Amino acid sequence: MSRFWSQTTKNIKPYVPGEQPKDRKYIKLNTNENPYPPSPRVLEAIRLAADETLRLYPDPSGDTLRDAIASPFGLARENVYIGNGSDELLAFCFPAFFEPEGLPILFADITYSFYPVYAQLFRIPYRLAPLDAQFNLSVEDYLQENGGILIANPNAPTGMGVPLESIEKILRYNENNVVVLDEAYVDFGGESSVGLIARFPNLLVVRTLSKSYSLAGLRVGFALGGKELIEGIIRVKDSVNSYTVDRLAQAGAREAIRDDAYFQEIKSKIVRTRNRVASRLENFGFRVLPSQANFLFVSHPQTPARILFQKLREQGILVRFFDKPGIDNFLRVSIGTDGEMDLFLKAVARICENEAL
Amino acid sequence: MSRFWSQTTKNIKPYVPGEQPKDRKYIKLNTNENPYPPSPRVLEAIRLAADETLRLYPDPSGDTLRDAIASPFGLARENVYIGNGSDELLAFCFPAFFEPEGLPILFADITYSFYPVYAQLFRIPYRLAPLDAQFNLSVEDYLQENGGILIANPNAPTGMGVPLESIEKILRYNENNVVVLDEAYVDFGGESSVGLIARFPNLLVVRTLSKSYSLAGLRVGFALGGKELIEGIIRVKDSVNSYTVDRLAQAGAREAIRDDAYFQEIKSKIVRTRNRVASRLENFGFRVLPSQANFLFVSHPQTPARILFQKLREQGILVRFFDKPGIDNFLRVSIGTDGEMDLFLKAVARICENEAL
Repeated sequence: MSRFWSQTTKNIKPYVPGEQPKDRKYIKLNTNENPYPPSPRVLEAIRLAADETLRLYPDPSGDTLRDAIASPFGLARENVYIGNGSDELLAFCFPAFFEPEGLPILFADITYSFYPVYAQLFRIPYRLAPLDAQFNLSVEDYLQENGGILIANPNAPTGMGVPLESIEKILRYNENNVVVLDEAYVDFGGESSVGLIARFPNLLVVRTLSKSYSLAGLRVGFALGGKELIEGIIRVKDSVNSYTVDRLAQAGAREAIRDDAYFQEIKSKIVRTRNRVASRLENFGFRVLPSQANFLFVSHPQTPARILFQKLREQGILVRFFDKPGIDNFLRVSIGTDGEMDLFLKAVARICENEAL
Repeated sequence: MSRFWSQTTKNIKPYVPGEQPKDRKYIKLNTNENPYPPSPRVLEAIRLAADETLRLYPDPSGDTLRDAIASPFGLARENVYIGNGSDELLAFCFPAFFEPEGLPILFADITYSFYPVYAQLFRIPYRLAPLDAQFNLSVEDYLQENGGILIANPNAPTGMGVPLESIEKILRYNENNVVVLDEAYVDFGGESSVGLIARFPNLLVVRTLSKSYSLAGLRVGFALGGKELIEGIIRVKDSVNSYTVDRLAQAGAREAIRDDAYFQEIKSKIVRTRNRVASRLENFGFRVLPSQANFLFVSHPQTPARILFQKLREQGILVRFFDKPGIDNFLRVSIGTDGEMDLFLKAVARICENEAL
């Protein structure tokens, strides 16, 4: 605490990302990064951009990157905006669309834990909609008066998807409120709502290149939606930072999107590995939530998650443990390469056997 | 306007950066970019970082870059924080240190026009302190009750510096309020306040690599100050975006700071060119404000700035014109290479002669 901080800064509980350890080499299954490198075409594009004109500001509106993103979705440039990671775009949604003196916005009690932090920073009131015992979202919770809605689909840290018909019901009921769908993990098997944009001007879909495009280190996310919502995001961006996506990131991201063959290939690999690891964990007696993401959310009937987390860490394997009521006996395990996951499975089997003795 | 926008988004007047034209090739003297490329060591560092691990998130606390910045100033890592350009860090200061329900913060009526935009976005009340007829800041204006202070030193778009003794007086009077000094242009001849950090825990100095380090396209800025202020900035950063500076930017910026010889060389070149161009313009009859920055703020007694701006543009030379009372007969001219400035001077002479006919 400091006397120089504002009340907001004193009260806020900032988001804590998964650790990026420096003490030793780990098998890193804790931040949902992609185990495969980005397309070689991305690196080539970055090299070219670095040699060109780093002394000049980037295009503040990112038009060529927006075009590259829009095209495969059959959307126009005006339906797309880019950000320094999807976190930034999600943050911009709060002052853009939600009212500090308005009705509370809604999001799940178990979801991306950054949402309540954004709300605190921008002083937006919010109400938590509890998931059911199976970690499913209850559509009825979102068919009530509210100041806006945020849904991660697939959800984090569960990996579970929300059916498109539920999303559509929510969009229809909330035609005067903005509904933000955080599709950070959708490429790994979720049902995307992008197809609903043409019919629902209240829908904003937020995506990232950090996971499925292997570009967590480059920081590029994008938002898709009707022209009015995109303009709202741009107004906020132009009130914070004229140039949020640097030249190298714009060039690299453009090429990542264009190399669709590479994208499809690594995406399929990760889905195959995920499904194999899920079966193996079930054979060990784990409860494994049905994941549409590049991670698994798992719980063992005998070995507490906290113990598993610690013992794995000692063996050089990092996973994510959330010390939070309702999910504190679960681990979130990012999907690595087949080799990494075999080492993970071996370590898990060993720990569970020892604990059972 | 859209029914989906918040009141804040409807009311705000976003900042408009100088144009990044795509229609033809211009001599670009409109956004204070550096005419020289960054150090070759920067490009090499970026290439290495791209080949390494773009699939992994960057270090969220940017420790090695912070160390590289801290060292030449004789500061510690805890006195430094990095951002996606200095604009982002300036934006973070508003929720970090200023109160929506508190006293108005203070900044000059003629200064970086992003300040009132940040205040609007974060709903911080502000009061403008008018510059005098010579565009000097009046210290007395800042020796009054306030909720915080922002000063650009050297100021933009005038290029004029504030003496260190005035800054010290302001810091001493405001020991319970945060004073943010925006030193974006200080490397070109301003007096830096970094030496005052040890004595004034209420001082935060914000810098950028966009101008003096030729890295506008990479988006890196930094803040220097006491531990408590740096922690305040970090709390806000961790409430918006865990990783604001990507891997390539961290690697490139580190090397830019380390290559001090290159930095000194291009900085001196720009200062020499600026002083030469200033004399020439004075010979043409221009009023040229005394600049400590990499631009000149100039006014011609006969030829209106608006006309000069338009005619220069027609001739392929972009400068910046602010259509704002008090400065609407001035042009802000960024310092390019000697060759570019000779073409600029020729064009100006031609336009002024024709207008005088």
